[in-house]
Amino acid sequence: MRVDGQHYRTIWAAADGSGDVEIIDQTRLPFAFIVLRLTTVDEVAEAIRSMRVRGAPLIGAAAAWGLALAARDDPAQGALEEAGTLLLATRPTAINLRWALDDVMSVLLQLPAARRAEAAARRAAAICDEDVALCEAIGGHGLPLIADAWEAKGRHGRVNVLTHCNAGWLATVDWGTALAPVYKAHEQGIPVHVWADETRPRNQGAALTAWELGRHGVPHTVIVDNAGGHLMQHGLVDLVIVGTDRTTRTGDVCNKIGTYLKALAAKDCGVPFWVALPGPSIDWSLDDGLRIPIEQRDAGEVTRIGGRAGDGRVLDIQLTPDLTAARNDAFDVTPARLITGLITERGRCEASAEGLSVLYPATGAQVASPRATGE
Amino acid sequence: MRVDGQHYRTIWAAADGSGDVEIIDQTRLPFAFIVLRLTTVDEVAEAIRSMRVRGAPLIGAAAAWGLALAARDDPAQGALEEAGTLLLATRPTAINLRWALDDVMSVLLQLPAARRAEAAARRAAAICDEDVALCEAIGGHGLPLIADAWEAKGRHGRVNVLTHCNAGWLATVDWGTALAPVYKAHEQGIPVHVWADETRPRNQGAALTAWELGRHGVPHTVIVDNAGGHLMQHGLVDLVIVGTDRTTRTGDVCNKIGTYLKALAAKDCGVPFWVALPGPSIDWSLDDGLRIPIEQRDAGEVTRIGGRAGDGRVLDIQLTPDLTAARNDAFDVTPARLITGLITERGRCEASAEGLSVLYPATGAQVASPRATGE
Repeated sequence: MRVDGQHYRTIWAAADGSGDVEIIDQTRLPFAFIVLRLTTVDEVAEAIRSMRVRGAPLIGAAAAWGLALAARDDPAQGALEEAGTLLLATRPTAINLRWALDDVMSVLLQLPAARRAEAAARRAAAICDEDVALCEAIGGHGLPLIADAWEAKGRHGRVNVLTHCNAGWLATVDWGTALAPVYKAHEQGIPVHVWADETRPRNQGAALTAWELGRHGVPHTVIVDNAGGHLMQHGLVDLVIVGTDRTTRTGDVCNKIGTYLKALAAKDCGVPFWVALPGPSIDWSLDDGLRIPIEQRDAGEVTRIGGRAGDGRVLDIQLTPDLTAARNDAFDVTPARLITGLITERGRCEASAEGLSVLYPATGAQVASPRATGE
Repeated sequence: MRVDGQHYRTIWAAADGSGDVEIIDQTRLPFAFIVLRLTTVDEVAEAIRSMRVRGAPLIGAAAAWGLALAARDDPAQGALEEAGTLLLATRPTAINLRWALDDVMSVLLQLPAARRAEAAARRAAAICDEDVALCEAIGGHGLPLIADAWEAKGRHGRVNVLTHCNAGWLATVDWGTALAPVYKAHEQGIPVHVWADETRPRNQGAALTAWELGRHGVPHTVIVDNAGGHLMQHGLVDLVIVGTDRTTRTGDVCNKIGTYLKALAAKDCGVPFWVALPGPSIDWSLDDGLRIPIEQRDAGEVTRIGGRAGDGRVLDIQLTPDLTAARNDAFDVTPARLITGLITERGRCEASAEGLSVLYPATGAQVASPRATGE
């Protein structure tokens, strides 16, 4: 998407052909736009761990590049496996991480060591291109939801989409998942407006969603995480679209903490609640979302927050009394029963084993009554 | 309640007999404990408007003291009415404000001007004492809920109470509403632990609830507003108790933005959801909570936040990109159907016209099938 008119991805091979990789350092947003060069797998692991790159699809792409840098450094199987272990341990919840590592590793281990570095870089670049295509396809399949809402309003006012956290282009290589339909609608001239949940504790909505929508020129308003239910009660939300870090084969959606609360409100208020779901985020091995391991993060993310002071310095401040205990679950699980449907790169479907198995017949469960709505 | 062993109220007549009133400046908490002396109605209005005192019951008490200071300055009817108008305009949602002003004014206007100042101070002090008694009674009627939960757990572990915003003693004159049962349980040696929602945008949970529980010695953990649903899904919340700024005669509860989301999660997870409800917070004129006027506050409360920097300075930082729009609804409405029951100073009852009319027969609606559970 565009940053003040210029097109960017979130991760790319350095233009000098060195094999290094460059990223937008998302910990510096929204106050500074910094491109960071990564030269080793350790630097990639650090970038994932400290969330310079974040978002399940982008984590997968970054991990693939991490293996490529590892292979450039030492293409021996032992070294690659060590690199894989290092990368896998950076974030426990996103399934894309394991998917991307398995993908690249399976390519590399079939090749003689001397050819691995180049093949890994090629595969990492391909994973990025595939992610872009996949996200753009999600945008295409989600666009009719926004277009239909616009028609249903008699083309009056604007279509209000509520989203949680950041599942925009910054969470992927480009386009985003939840925001891809929004960008598509904006491109088509539909007056779409986004309610961006700030998404405590890390405030990816206030910092990242607001930044990327603003830089691309999409109207949006930041709200606190407490506000969405009230807006839905008063008819101010036409649909909700969120992303996912991992979704079970039965359609239970693990996503940023607080997603479940918005799904409950949407159900209570009759507001459609859609999840933008890239295929690699589906965990075909799980039936029950409540069994997904939930990352427990540092309590300091709750007791402190970062931002820009009046003198321009970006700093952390303490929000709670000294020594106050805090708990920081990073994700929650929204049961499939609360979800209107899934928007995948292959079309839309019901949030269920039946729905998913129609779109993903090779991997999905065998079922009696398919009810996919994908086109 | 206690602050490091010493007993405090949130508002009191200055000990020097001057007629001035003293408050704890809640905008300085949790980083500084500052007692502020107010000498004029303008200072009281400023203290309410800038939330040095906040919480519906405390706002009422402060407004009563504001009229007392106005009467000391000029007891003429015109001056008092001007003072009442000034105070009423400070916060639009809390019904206690109007209730306290009407109460004091009706006393004063029956008296000759020369006797009004003393009578107003006496009435303001009485309103404070009544609020303390009322809140302690709420604590007594709520205590069995926590005691029963403790028994139901076989006296193992601890009773986990989730609360939103601050409806503790800082929101009242003493004891609090939602936290009064917690203080009572703590007094009785029941191991009660509070999940304190931080409650963006003003973070009264992280700043005030955490502070008052900590200073009194009640175990607690701060969580972001997004987390409560997840904790309930995993059996980590035994009951929810919140306060209210205004409740309709039919039991719809207007409270700090985000309360509705927690009520939805409690319903979905089978967790009891109780509202601590002082009689003066009931609006007998309203049937439909969605008709309660909701205060729209400054968007800057969303785009900025205050806290303490590493160098000890308390300051505001910016959270969003420059020029980002934000919306700031201060309250939402939880429909009675989501509420397990109300805890009032007169006992517990169903959140309905029927339930309330049994406890408040003089004002409540006439009904066929009373189902009050108060003792």
